[in-house]
Amino acid sequence: MASVRLIGGRASPFVNRVQIALNLKSIDYEFLQEKFGSKSELLLKSNPIHKKIPVLIHEDRAICESLIIVQYIDETWTSGPSILPSDSYDRATAQFWAAYIDEKCTPNLRALRAAKGEEEKSEASNRLFEMWILLEEVLVKRSEGGKGFFGGDKIGYVDIALGCSLGWLKAMEKLLGVKLLNAEKTPELVRWAERFCADDAVKGVIPETEELLEFSKNFIPKVLVS
Amino acid sequence: MASVRLIGGRASPFVNRVQIALNLKSIDYEFLQEKFGSKSELLLKSNPIHKKIPVLIHEDRAICESLIIVQYIDETWTSGPSILPSDSYDRATAQFWAAYIDEKCTPNLRALRAAKGEEEKSEASNRLFEMWILLEEVLVKRSEGGKGFFGGDKIGYVDIALGCSLGWLKAMEKLLGVKLLNAEKTPELVRWAERFCADDAVKGVIPETEELLEFSKNFIPKVLVS
Repeated sequence: MASVRLIGGRASPFVNRVQIALNLKSIDYEFLQEKFGSKSELLLKSNPIHKKIPVLIHEDRAICESLIIVQYIDETWTSGPSILPSDSYDRATAQFWAAYIDEKCTPNLRALRAAKGEEEKSEASNRLFEMWILLEEVLVKRSEGGKGFFGGDKIGYVDIALGCSLGWLKAMEKLLGVKLLNAEKTPELVRWAERFCADDAVKGVIPETEELLEFSKNFIPKVLVS
Repeated sequence: MASVRLIGGRASPFVNRVQIALNLKSIDYEFLQEKFGSKSELLLKSNPIHKKIPVLIHEDRAICESLIIVQYIDETWTSGPSILPSDSYDRATAQFWAAYIDEKCTPNLRALRAAKGEEEKSEASNRLFEMWILLEEVLVKRSEGGKGFFGGDKIGYVDIALGCSLGWLKAMEKLLGVKLLNAEKTPELVRWAERFCADDAVKGVIPETEELLEFSKNFIPKVLVS
């Protein structure tokens, strides 16, 4: 049995975060695919509180919650590139933005997915735009003119936190026929998204739009995906 | 000007977390009291995203979000007692429980405070009981027979995360005339709460019930606090 196992599902951005962190550190792991709509014995045993993916199992000990897992990976495999900054103030700042992204990004993408009618759709997409505008400013400052990542010249904690939503963002753009990330309003973020998706640690992790749209038929109202 | 300043309010459990962490590390700091219902220029400048207390200002740099601040304090002043465990798996576990407490404790205390009618009150108090029962199990395991704290033989990250709600818990018990933390159902937690409140780092930080009830007149429906 592999010493590192990941209980997950390919379409989950939270699982993708862990996959990217493991790739950045060049760690071999076994991927244990959960079936949509059911929960394995191992998942229920490993995360009895929330019963949610992802769960990382390292030497038979379970670690839950995607951002906590990413931090655990960074602290456990120190020989690879650092994911969190070494300076404690920079680390606190990265954690602040990752928490902000968790609070704003996925909830608004979900709200967009579940929106009934134009008003709800427009509210959720406006809240996403507010987030992008703010993160564009942060990115420009952090990456010295937009040449790199939130983590500087390489993918870091905030990049992982945000970047994993790009797959669903593109899927929602296609589904709804709207542009959710806009090169006119947030040009650096658009370039950052391209750089992020082209990185060796990310390629092949975040599913393509078609795969996510197929997957989304499980839970998005039929009127949208028919 | 002090090199460590804390923008806060005495009645906020999130601010109390930071105060206790600073006390544990024996750090002198200036407390900048925010007035209820208004926000100072310094707060708006230091936490422009959320505009919320607490904010720690250390050497003119602002750190926001209570649990992130506690971690920052632990990493910055390493000569005092450790707040987070040094082992990365134990650290991930402590972060997991602190996140669980943030998700369950304050939201349900707030729901209890805002409850209209017996049904809503009973739902929120049942959710709190579920949390206590679970945390009782964790405490018994972690503190080797209930002799200490979630952090072992001294106050740690999870103790700080949970303990700061004890003031409001007692205030709500008095206000509603119900027992929310019950010595019959969760005896170890009741003993832990006494130990926590009696600790030198905590004494004088969490306001007394009467002070919180007086403060609560600002926002609890008049029917409850008249």
